[in-house]
Amino acid sequence: LTAEGPADLLGPLFRWERLAGLLDARARIQAMLDFEAALARAQAGLGIIPSTAAAAIGAQCSADRIDAKALAREAAQAGNLAIPLVRQLTARVAAADPVAAGFVHWGATSQDVIDTGLVLQLRAALDAIDGELERLAERLAELADGHRGTLLPARTWMQQAVPTSFGLKAAGFLDAVHRHQDRLAELRARGLVLQLGGAAGTLAALGPRGLEVAAALAEDLRLGLPDVPWHSHRDRVAEVATTLGLLAGTLGKIARDLALHAQTEVAEAFEPTAEGRGGSSTMPHKRNPVAAAVALAAAARVPGLVSSLLGAMVQEHERGLGGWPAEWETLPDLVGLCGGALHHLTEALCGLRVDVARMAANLEATEGLVYAEAAQMALAVHTGRAEARRIVEAACERARTEERHLHDVLADDPQARAHLPPAELDRLFDARWQHGQAEALIDRVLATRRSRRRPPAGGE
Amino acid sequence: LTAEGPADLLGPLFRWERLAGLLDARARIQAMLDFEAALARAQAGLGIIPSTAAAAIGAQCSADRIDAKALAREAAQAGNLAIPLVRQLTARVAAADPVAAGFVHWGATSQDVIDTGLVLQLRAALDAIDGELERLAERLAELADGHRGTLLPARTWMQQAVPTSFGLKAAGFLDAVHRHQDRLAELRARGLVLQLGGAAGTLAALGPRGLEVAAALAEDLRLGLPDVPWHSHRDRVAEVATTLGLLAGTLGKIARDLALHAQTEVAEAFEPTAEGRGGSSTMPHKRNPVAAAVALAAAARVPGLVSSLLGAMVQEHERGLGGWPAEWETLPDLVGLCGGALHHLTEALCGLRVDVARMAANLEATEGLVYAEAAQMALAVHTGRAEARRIVEAACERARTEERHLHDVLADDPQARAHLPPAELDRLFDARWQHGQAEALIDRVLATRRSRRRPPAGGE
Amino acid sequence: LTAEGPADLLGPLFRWERLAGLLDARARIQAMLDFEAALARAQAGLGIIPSTAAAAIGAQCSADRIDAKALAREAAQAGNLAIPLVRQLTARVAAADPVAAGFVHWGATSQDVIDTGLVLQLRAALDAIDGELERLAERLAELADGHRGTLLPARTWMQQAVPTSFGLKAAGFLDAVHRHQDRLAELRARGLVLQLGGAAGTLAALGPRGLEVAAALAEDLRLGLPDVPWHSHRDRVAEVATTLGLLAGTLGKIARDLALHAQTEVAEAFEPTAEGRGGSSTMPHKRNPVAAAVALAAAARVPGLVSSLLGAMVQEHERGLGGWPAEWETLPDLVGLCGGALHHLTEALCGLRVDVARMAANLEATEGLVYAEAAQMALAVHTGRAEARRIVEAACERARTEERHLHDVLADDPQARAHLPPAELDRLFDARWQHGQAEALIDRVLATRRSRRRPPAGGE
Amino acid sequence: LTAEGPADLLGPLFRWERLAGLLDARARIQAMLDFEAALARAQAGLGIIPSTAAAAIGAQCSADRIDAKALAREAAQAGNLAIPLVRQLTARVAAADPVAAGFVHWGATSQDVIDTGLVLQLRAALDAIDGELERLAERLAELADGHRGTLLPARTWMQQAVPTSFGLKAAGFLDAVHRHQDRLAELRARGLVLQLGGAAGTLAALGPRGLEVAAALAEDLRLGLPDVPWHSHRDRVAEVATTLGLLAGTLGKIARDLALHAQTEVAEAFEPTAEGRGGSSTMPHKRNPVAAAVALAAAARVPGLVSSLLGAMVQEHERGLGGWPAEWETLPDLVGLCGGALHHLTEALCGLRVDVARMAANLEATEGLVYAEAAQMALAVHTGRAEARRIVEAACERARTEERHLHDVLADDPQARAHLPPAELDRLFDARWQHGQAEALIDRVLATRRSRRRPPAGGE
Repeated sequence: LTAEGPADLLGPLFRWERLAGLLDARARIQAMLDFEAALARAQAGLGIIPSTAAAAIGAQCSADRIDAKALAREAAQAGNLAIPLVRQLTARVAAADPVAAGFVHWGATSQDVIDTGLVLQLRAALDAIDGELERLAERLAELADGHRGTLLPARTWMQQAVPTSFGLKAAGFLDAVHRHQDRLAELRARGLVLQLGGAAGTLAALGPRGLEVAAALAEDLRLGLPDVPWHSHRDRVAEVATTLGLLAGTLGKIARDLALHAQTEVAEAFEPTAEGRGGSSTMPHKRNPVAAAVALAAAARVPGLVSSLLGAMVQEHERGLGGWPAEWETLPDLVGLCGGALHHLTEALCGLRVDVARMAANLEATEGLVYAEAAQMALAVHTGRAEARRIVEAACERARTEERHLHDVLADDPQARAHLPPAELDRLFDARWQHGQAEALIDRVLATRRSRRRPPAGGE
Repeated sequence: LTAEGPADLLGPLFRWERLAGLLDARARIQAMLDFEAALARAQAGLGIIPSTAAAAIGAQCSADRIDAKALAREAAQAGNLAIPLVRQLTARVAAADPVAAGFVHWGATSQDVIDTGLVLQLRAALDAIDGELERLAERLAELADGHRGTLLPARTWMQQAVPTSFGLKAAGFLDAVHRHQDRLAELRARGLVLQLGGAAGTLAALGPRGLEVAAALAEDLRLGLPDVPWHSHRDRVAEVATTLGLLAGTLGKIARDLALHAQTEVAEAFEPTAEGRGGSSTMPHKRNPVAAAVALAAAARVPGLVSSLLGAMVQEHERGLGGWPAEWETLPDLVGLCGGALHHLTEALCGLRVDVARMAANLEATEGLVYAEAAQMALAVHTGRAEARRIVEAACERARTEERHLHDVLADDPQARAHLPPAELDRLFDARWQHGQAEALIDRVLATRRSRRRPPAGGE
Repeated sequence: LTAEGPADLLGPLFRWERLAGLLDARARIQAMLDFEAALARAQAGLGIIPSTAAAAIGAQCSADRIDAKALAREAAQAGNLAIPLVRQLTARVAAADPVAAGFVHWGATSQDVIDTGLVLQLRAALDAIDGELERLAERLAELADGHRGTLLPARTWMQQAVPTSFGLKAAGFLDAVHRHQDRLAELRARGLVLQLGGAAGTLAALGPRGLEVAAALAEDLRLGLPDVPWHSHRDRVAEVATTLGLLAGTLGKIARDLALHAQTEVAEAFEPTAEGRGGSSTMPHKRNPVAAAVALAAAARVPGLVSSLLGAMVQEHERGLGGWPAEWETLPDLVGLCGGALHHLTEALCGLRVDVARMAANLEATEGLVYAEAAQMALAVHTGRAEARRIVEAACERARTEERHLHDVLADDPQARAHLPPAELDRLFDARWQHGQAEALIDRVLATRRSRRRPPAGGE
Repeated sequence: LTAEGPADLLGPLFRWERLAGLLDARARIQAMLDFEAALARAQAGLGIIPSTAAAAIGAQCSADRIDAKALAREAAQAGNLAIPLVRQLTARVAAADPVAAGFVHWGATSQDVIDTGLVLQLRAALDAIDGELERLAERLAELADGHRGTLLPARTWMQQAVPTSFGLKAAGFLDAVHRHQDRLAELRARGLVLQLGGAAGTLAALGPRGLEVAAALAEDLRLGLPDVPWHSHRDRVAEVATTLGLLAGTLGKIARDLALHAQTEVAEAFEPTAEGRGGSSTMPHKRNPVAAAVALAAAARVPGLVSSLLGAMVQEHERGLGGWPAEWETLPDLVGLCGGALHHLTEALCGLRVDVARMAANLEATEGLVYAEAAQMALAVHTGRAEARRIVEAACERARTEERHLHDVLADDPQARAHLPPAELDRLFDARWQHGQAEALIDRVLATRRSRRRPPAGGE
């Protein structure tokens, strides 16, 4: 390759650059080194190791100083990244301060540094995701408010059903985003905690002051302190997966709707166009919805990753044999895919082109059938539901076979005419009167949004 | 079959009878009828339909009056259960009060009754699960407290690591249960809400009073009132799956540990025995851990079901074509499997037989290797970590090849002897001094448990 | 419930009655009894047990004689169905012939009867599925041949691309069905084999004649004889899941296409209508594609079940603790869902209504853009590909903004006009000349179909 | 990072270097370029494009000449890798031969080059996997033959059951490997075929000679020629996933057994040791089974990836919107994980250390209970099965409570003594007589292996 190519050819398509930088090899190493530096600081603060040792250790805790190729090679033998990382770190510290080298990783085990490092990475990643989710919420609120009266056919089972408003669709998306924001907040409170247990969770190697070290370390890293080490209980890790899995589902749902709206025959809403965006290698006229494809691909991939992480929870005794390593690539993959879908879909929604006229036109495509329920309900007040159903169902059938507008068929129907004077009939077939409580519902969601008044994303 | 056999031959093995009764065909129908009765009550209360109609409708809303075979047969045509149920209900009401029949299911759509019915079933199911989870917590607290000093080898990567206490293992289980209880509480608050949107979520068929009806109905059913109908946003439903999926993972982890403890060669803890329990069709000596098998089977099955429900979230427009029906059997299956695992594992833990002596004996099975880390840390204070590692690693190797106790090898080692006087060496090889902060950690979890003082399960 | 309701309310919707009967509780019990009867016959044939014993055992091997409720209850204690079934069978045989009772289940273990029983059920189920798949192939061949010239827009990324023929779509479906038929044939050959290993796969309990018994039993049951018992190697079972999982994916693909064709705005093809089929509980005009929903629901549910069965393959030693029981309900569920999707989709395709005129009309919906690639290729011969691309892309843009037909824009374009005389331009915009090799490709698939000349389904 | 670090820190641990090189960014680009070069050659051969153009195109089809960073960046806009790759290739060809540039990618579409490129990569990857699988088979055959008489306890439900031989366990593994080899052969025959369909599968852009081009191209690339383009039918791709998913399950099963054998308390078999292999960052005595962990991690991760690919089969019309992109990273991940597990596990088995003495000792750990079935069967010949069961079950209970050897309890039991003379009793408790048909079964598998006489892996 002419330029030193990224191993991850599809990274820019599927992922979000900012988030990817928090999940890559360097970030992983740095997070583990941050743990080692903070462990030494905490222990020095308690007088367990010399302050000079903590300083000497901290001075080497930079990912720039690590030979990542050697790390990867040795990890294949050792079975995890911590063992060779501690070895490299110890050697570097020893070169500068041989005594300090004796206190590297003091009393900790591989899982302590790997898991806490993961938590540090997740905190940064969730900050980024929270911020982008808020940007999505902002845009959806705009769409909900701005398109409160933009009428189009609601579709159930992919068939035109009754009129709705595009703003209500956006409000429904926003309402779901609110729940995801709440879930992420709960997840942070429960999941972003220190792991420090020593060899098998008893803190034995730290002697009687193990709990003090844990408390000081948690404070240093600004992480919660759990009641007990959680090395073999992976629900906190898996909950990151399930929470983001739910988010991916919602992003997929929004993307599916966009893709359906963008179909040639529907043509109601489109992703923004740009030079080189969504083309075809052979068809000059194509404008493919790339962001929708990215979000749908994520929604297709994430559930399997969630199931892998749930299945991997069944870990043996004090450290699982295959379950724990099964997390190491799966969780970053999952976070990266969700974040990528979130980012690209938010971008697309920010540039969304809505064809209000086509939406209105599509409402008229069924020659009035989309108003059948309205007619039935209006009749039902007079005739009862069953009779109204019978009348309107028959009228629909006639409208279809005779290729007439349902309005006109009903206007000719003696029973319908008996109960529905022309003005009411006209109103029943006017979408402006038939989108129900759409605006009131939009207002409920927007009011909730205002009341949430969230602090800036990621601020603790 | 001589007796009218259950279709569900494996139900008693895999499920919990009490919970199964909340998830079966009758409960499903009754929950849907409860919605219809409450809808009529709410509408009558608001003067939208006659009070006599509400009474006549309510009088027929009993699953006993429904022809379930016909229901199933017609659902195959209609595509869902609500259409034939409303038809049957309407016919029954009509027989008693023809006018009232006109107001059955007034302004609602199939999804309103199916989804809200599901929520009602889930509420009852989560009540049951909460109660059982509290029973599990109680038992784990007993085990944690009672076995705080019961020493055994911790195992990492399925190899003996260092000493721990069985009480700490139980405390770790309990700590995870606390988190699951919190998740379930959050789930209830967010997920147990009314679905009422009419044909496509605008409440149009209910005219200007749609929101009033929704509020009154939610109050009648003691359900939360969402900002907007959520028919095509399935995160609430999927969150039931993910939350229970996390629980299934923890149950599987506990079960895996029990199964490993119960191995013939380990023999540390056993499920209770009973006539006909855990036998073999050919081997007279077998005592199979049935509850562990049930929980592990659930932990193997549930992740796939979670992924199905996450994948099914990608639903089209205002009502998904395949995604929504994909939930109808999957979610009850998942709830039933989790509840069954929870119940059977709780039962097994309540009767758990712990072989304290065997645990102690297993600690000695490695001729002292399980104390290697303790010796290394004691030496490291004097020699630095790397040198201590070198000394103890060599001693371990010698202990293995010469088949001697590590204590004795170290006692003979000049370097070790220089730093570790005999009394300290003895203490390093005595598990009573080597389980670290196990008891303090147990106390932390038990204190949390006391502070939670939960109200009775399921009480709102 | 007024009639004794099916536990399986949604069975008729999601499953195929004929297949469901091969997978239900009775069929499961009967298959296990068939194993026990055949085992006794085989052993009697070899003189290992008395012929009278085999006769007495065989006489009781009818599911009608089994108390299924007791079976289910005892299985919850025993951990599997075989133990209580053997107990009931032994008691029944004992009542008639006490000596014979001593030879029930001679030398076999629970897994032998459960697994071989499963294989017998699977054979019958695969027969049924093979038959239905052949019916589907037949119908697809008809559609491929009959609609070879029915033109419509191909859609890529859900955007109109270029013209194709509906017959070619059907031929693509048929081509996939051919592969599924091949996979099923391979699966049968590899997977439908006897399991007989005794307690742990050594056949020890049968003494020196264990292999003879296995051979005779396999012959009696018309099953393959494996090289070794396969009790803890579940790839044969999991391959049923993966093979049907692939089929479910294809059925879902076909269903997705049908659902997209049936959209109100596309309206090209529809499922058959029938009284009560695909209605709505509130909207009188709805005609929902129920079979597509069923197939899509199966396609959403099956992948998770496949992953459960793959994950469950990791079974311990000579009999897995949780992995094996995890199969017991999952595999029949999966087979039932696939069969249901296959049956309902085949039915829908048999009654498919194709709107040839609408397809043609949709081809014209883009004002010629669907012919852009044809124009580009025609130009490229003269100008090279890049220049042709530039010309046609610009023309497309002009057509869009000026709302003109692409044909006319190109007719006015000096460069295009220079190379494309009016007759050729007309031909480029005539779908009859622009569906490429569609017919030749259809003929290839139909020729393959004829050459396969499969024997009647299920015939061995 | 001091050395330019691999993005894939965990690659050497989880993957197999040789295979990883066939799946990385360079290999992906080269495979796509191989398609473009071959397409030009095939078209030149048929006189459709000039021979000089084919030569000029072929001269640029080297991954070394591609700017991978630009490729990745543009793919994020374009939605796939083919569009920017064709652009780069065209520009390079144009620099050397402007006329030839006009014939790059002639008549093909993005999916043609991406899918056929994938098939070329898969062919190379399956060659590598086939070779390694044969190496695994060879080693398993050695173990089966060499350990045919190495006795140890079979374990069912993780409890000691009856004696078996370690050779039979290996034979069972080998038998499964045979099936996987067959599946891979079937997969190759069915799946390794050309994709060439043009914009939407009609080959329209190639005019009347489209099928000739396809045939020539398939021949050039030594790929099968399918009846129709398969761009939107992904069963071939998904079958790679399911086939390797089955393999991952078997590898996980073998790894689980190794991990269980290697437990401190069981200590029957161990992975090879090596400097730095399987250590701990804190415990100097640890020898962790790294290869087992790698294989179990793969077995935990692969089922979720399989389910993603099965779910992604539901692709819309002539090119799926999210389903197709969902394959692009998932399938290589899956292939890489399976291959890594296969390679590392094969390595571990090649160096496996078997402790024959410990296996024998473990057989005696139950004080004879492991022979209970043998005693029961011997008695049953005289007393009938039920009575024998009663006698031996009671004896087992007595042996347990009185802590005596089952042999001695039975020797004292009047009923047992009546039928089992001392010599027979001794023989019942001697594993050498109690491993049934283990050796005959081993021979069956070894005979099959010889009869297969496979040609060298990957040779077509």
